[in-house]
Amino acid sequence: MHFPPLGTPKDALDTPALCLDLPALDANIREVAALCRRHGVAWRPHSKAHKSPDIARRLIEAGAIGMTCAKLGEAEVFAAAGISDLLIANMIVGPRKIERLVALRRKADPIVCVDHLDQAEPISAAMHSAGLAVRVLIELDVGMSRVGVAPGEAALDLARRVSDLPGLQLAGLMAWEGHLLTIDDPADKAAKIESAIDRLTATRRLLESSGLPCNIVSCGGTGSLPLTVQQPEITEVQAGGVIFMDAFYRHRCRIEGFRHALTLLVTVVSRPAPDRAVIDAGRKAMFNDSHPALVVGRDDIQVDRLSAEHGQLKLAPAAQSLRIGERLELIPGYSDLTTVLHNQFYVLEEGKLVDIWPLAGRGRLE
Amino acid sequence: MHFPPLGTPKDALDTPALCLDLPALDANIREVAALCRRHGVAWRPHSKAHKSPDIARRLIEAGAIGMTCAKLGEAEVFAAAGISDLLIANMIVGPRKIERLVALRRKADPIVCVDHLDQAEPISAAMHSAGLAVRVLIELDVGMSRVGVAPGEAALDLARRVSDLPGLQLAGLMAWEGHLLTIDDPADKAAKIESAIDRLTATRRLLESSGLPCNIVSCGGTGSLPLTVQQPEITEVQAGGVIFMDAFYRHRCRIEGFRHALTLLVTVVSRPAPDRAVIDAGRKAMFNDSHPALVVGRDDIQVDRLSAEHGQLKLAPAAQSLRIGERLELIPGYSDLTTVLHNQFYVLEEGKLVDIWPLAGRGRLE
Repeated sequence: MHFPPLGTPKDALDTPALCLDLPALDANIREVAALCRRHGVAWRPHSKAHKSPDIARRLIEAGAIGMTCAKLGEAEVFAAAGISDLLIANMIVGPRKIERLVALRRKADPIVCVDHLDQAEPISAAMHSAGLAVRVLIELDVGMSRVGVAPGEAALDLARRVSDLPGLQLAGLMAWEGHLLTIDDPADKAAKIESAIDRLTATRRLLESSGLPCNIVSCGGTGSLPLTVQQPEITEVQAGGVIFMDAFYRHRCRIEGFRHALTLLVTVVSRPAPDRAVIDAGRKAMFNDSHPALVVGRDDIQVDRLSAEHGQLKLAPAAQSLRIGERLELIPGYSDLTTVLHNQFYVLEEGKLVDIWPLAGRGRLE
Repeated sequence: MHFPPLGTPKDALDTPALCLDLPALDANIREVAALCRRHGVAWRPHSKAHKSPDIARRLIEAGAIGMTCAKLGEAEVFAAAGISDLLIANMIVGPRKIERLVALRRKADPIVCVDHLDQAEPISAAMHSAGLAVRVLIELDVGMSRVGVAPGEAALDLARRVSDLPGLQLAGLMAWEGHLLTIDDPADKAAKIESAIDRLTATRRLLESSGLPCNIVSCGGTGSLPLTVQQPEITEVQAGGVIFMDAFYRHRCRIEGFRHALTLLVTVVSRPAPDRAVIDAGRKAMFNDSHPALVVGRDDIQVDRLSAEHGQLKLAPAAQSLRIGERLELIPGYSDLTTVLHNQFYVLEEGKLVDIWPLAGRGRLE
């Protein structure tokens, strides 16, 4: 594939093109870093929406303490790029994966999470026999009912057993309040998130009063960032998608104060009916199930139905002069599941291409 | 990334792993090729679900006349692999794309489709000034209301104008009956598909009686293959996903006679509740919105909710002994939007890895 040369105007990029506005990205990064500093909380941004060592380095330069990764394969990509402090926010299970975790531990300082001894024991055995140790967080279920051990005594019991295993260093607790992001009433949302995080921090006190270490207390995604960052006993937040600020985070989670840095350039390829246009981007170019994509500067155009390779727009009367060949810029509905469909970010500044960043961790699912 | 060596047993592949059972794939390919031969219809399988030159070559060897592609970028990948007869089943719009189409035409024999003169004229101008010509199909809307010109006089008018343009060779008609795949009642489905295809073939007769060429009459996806292949006046079918045979095609479209060649190997990573297991594959590893993935050989396990990086299973009482570390094999809900999340197919025969095929056209959205 031939990439356009640096300096190419945005209007001349072929479409669909996943674009990053660099000043907006940097402004968002500075904003989160400042927010975390104000509240005395560390920032370990989740990398699952960008999977890009270029962005990771920018985050670290702005003050992030390391990365949160969804998968071991992503952590390997960031370690190869020189980033050491990597929380893998998922369970590492199976002999081949544990071999790879041992190899990763030789060149980086990962953290793994567990919710059962059956995950911890094989990692302990492998690390111990390699003469290594790896940091471990206990993942709690604070109400999402996905993974995680129950807060309180069950978590304490698991933490105690983990701390007794060789090759493991109990480092603290992690929880994810992902079921509470889209509550409409702000007071209700704040109360429910505070209550969920209370279960996490109460477990921290239980561990510490039992003599167990709990240096890390990690939670907080983009959709809850302004609330979680205020909780007094957490040590770090994981919010990552905030640097892109998509339509879901802005309008369903009502997160304010950030710019839409990530957009998708598209072209109108068909005008089969007065109120319908079809663009060259469908489900293989964006994910809209959490929230429809928005058209920048065009309230008269709605992104309607997506099929795999086509996207249908619904045009209000004012937009019906739209012609084949016209270009539009979309704010993706949900950035996390949009970016992974692309191979690279086109990085723009003042309407010109200034860099191309590959999604090096894309498809590193294993 | 380090790939496992050939000969690795399936049980030792790291997960999630997108697997192709080679004998099942080959059986499916032979079955479609034989079906098309019996009905005297050519097969131009859609490549959007595999994006793999390795698979494309296998299809051509089995008798496919060429490939159907979703995007110009995919056609470029197949042309680089030596495949010439490439139908790009989408509109090619914009100056940069048309430059690329001209370059593609120098080394291959693509077909483009149009539903408006605004797509045809710029291609005509570019081809003509390069001293080339490209084949063109008129895309008809036979009821799906996505793209396409109306069958009958409107199509005839566009075909006539296209045939008058230099640099374009009117080659025929294309339609897509994609709105009729999931009709439950077999007689109703057959009648509606026949009626949609009648609109396509009636337009063929209209073109021919007006002295316009119409050598290609193309339609027919996997979910309608047994019906479209029987329509007397079509010349080729595009069914592509049939070679994988996912849960959607088998159970929503009720397509019989093919094997499930594509599976996803996963590992149970958490057992947070007696009736709930969590696997290491979510929305970034499979697409289940059209139909849930099925667990091979396990009626007592349902694939329930997917989040981006986790998949939740619902366990019937008989399955509740499932442990962390156990592996399962899933039949994807919808193959087309599953494969594009992966970088490679692990190709297996008799339970051993015999090849690794990259999805070379993946992410070639532009």
